[in-house]
Amino acid sequence: MAGTELTNIRSPRVKAARRLTKRAFRDRDRAFLAEGPQAVREALALDGVTVELFATAEAEIRHADIIGAADAAGVPVLRVSGEVMAELAQTVTPQGLMGVCRFVHVPLSEAVPSGARLVALLAHVRDPGNAGTVLRTADAAGADAVVFTDASVDPYNGKCVRASAGSLFHLPVATGARVEDAVRHVRDAGMRVLAADGTGKATLDDVDLSVPTAWLFGNEAWGLPPALLELADEVVRVPIYGRAESLNLATAAAVCLYASARAQR
Amino acid sequence: MAGTELTNIRSPRVKAARRLTKRAFRDRDRAFLAEGPQAVREALALDGVTVELFATAEAEIRHADIIGAADAAGVPVLRVSGEVMAELAQTVTPQGLMGVCRFVHVPLSEAVPSGARLVALLAHVRDPGNAGTVLRTADAAGADAVVFTDASVDPYNGKCVRASAGSLFHLPVATGARVEDAVRHVRDAGMRVLAADGTGKATLDDVDLSVPTAWLFGNEAWGLPPALLELADEVVRVPIYGRAESLNLATAAAVCLYASARAQR
Repeated sequence: MAGTELTNIRSPRVKAARRLTKRAFRDRDRAFLAEGPQAVREALALDGVTVELFATAEAEIRHADIIGAADAAGVPVLRVSGEVMAELAQTVTPQGLMGVCRFVHVPLSEAVPSGARLVALLAHVRDPGNAGTVLRTADAAGADAVVFTDASVDPYNGKCVRASAGSLFHLPVATGARVEDAVRHVRDAGMRVLAADGTGKATLDDVDLSVPTAWLFGNEAWGLPPALLELADEVVRVPIYGRAESLNLATAAAVCLYASARAQR
Repeated sequence: MAGTELTNIRSPRVKAARRLTKRAFRDRDRAFLAEGPQAVREALALDGVTVELFATAEAEIRHADIIGAADAAGVPVLRVSGEVMAELAQTVTPQGLMGVCRFVHVPLSEAVPSGARLVALLAHVRDPGNAGTVLRTADAAGADAVVFTDASVDPYNGKCVRASAGSLFHLPVATGARVEDAVRHVRDAGMRVLAADGTGKATLDDVDLSVPTAWLFGNEAWGLPPALLELADEVVRVPIYGRAESLNLATAAAVCLYASARAQR
């Protein structure tokens, strides 16, 4: 349990954690912030991931189970004022718990071993909320891994972590590989590569989704550039039955990943 | 084409439009704001919906086709400064075009006539971005209508209009009915009512989705309350194959609506 409450946003430990809201510092420290009871609980379930935990007095009472789990794991708990938490959380309604966590990603070869059956590759996904939602959806659909390529948002971005709703800690995540290398790797691992793009001639109903499949997802606004479409075995679009021009990226990914998950079962 | 550029955020026409960012004024004027080229283009495609159009000088050049369509439809175009547009748009990066539009919703009986085959009912959806995304997805899935019940967010909320990406103007939208009345109506119209909820015993794979179906979607955080679950013919969950606790609401809606759309074809 925490001792004195930290009330100064300039205290060294708060400042050190606060810097992790910036990617350069995350990369330097190989650490990131995970906010809220759901993310913290999932982080604590993994050995050695949580470095320290910030908690408001109110959260210590409400989430006594999580504080207990931190104590049992030897993770220091620092009590902070609401003001300090707001500074760390950068949200309008901070949830009172903030974990400082070590990076959890793994090498591509470990994330996608031979025999993997369903993988999501994020090629140019730039909105962290979208990326986190795809991560959560891939987890729900039982995907083996999610690969954030070097042209995509940082998986440790606070909004991405929040949108992933704990899934960042559930399934293997790889990050930083070039799209071309990631595609080559998943193909070598025995997977068919399908690019999800509105320009596809084939629709979801035209392809055999029961085989091991890696889905390649592109940018929110402009999809996948021709050079990346060419990397795929097939370009597949989600059929538009009505008058919408397109689907939101996270929505399209959900339809694709679930179509695969259901076909593989 | 516009005459003098309005540069004062206190000019009467700017103030009158600016007030439409608030629901009370929207309801009083029965008008709302539609931002960006996509929304404005769709609004102009409907007779008598667009009351006036605000445009920056830059947008007038870039979207000459839209300005031309407004002129042809007799819609007044007011040129405004970037500062005035930022005030109207309430976004970090305003897109330079803002339409003032008349309400487009229709009575429930008109939105969901006998013979409708796929409808989305929003029961307690409170996040406007989620609601707009569901609207866009329902449009893409070829749904006949979307019903915003009285416990849901206002479909004319700026974030909802933006997330709908024009779909607000594509398919019939009803708003303001009590959930109970909406459910009774869609059932009388010959539809089966499926509540999408994580507590469902049946999964998407267990139900016949080829029949006319109205999907009832609940709150982002707490789903549907027991009283509403009881209104449905069946409570259905999207299967979770991995370790995620749940799906994001808009994601779950996408999986459900597309499962229906594909089964009905």
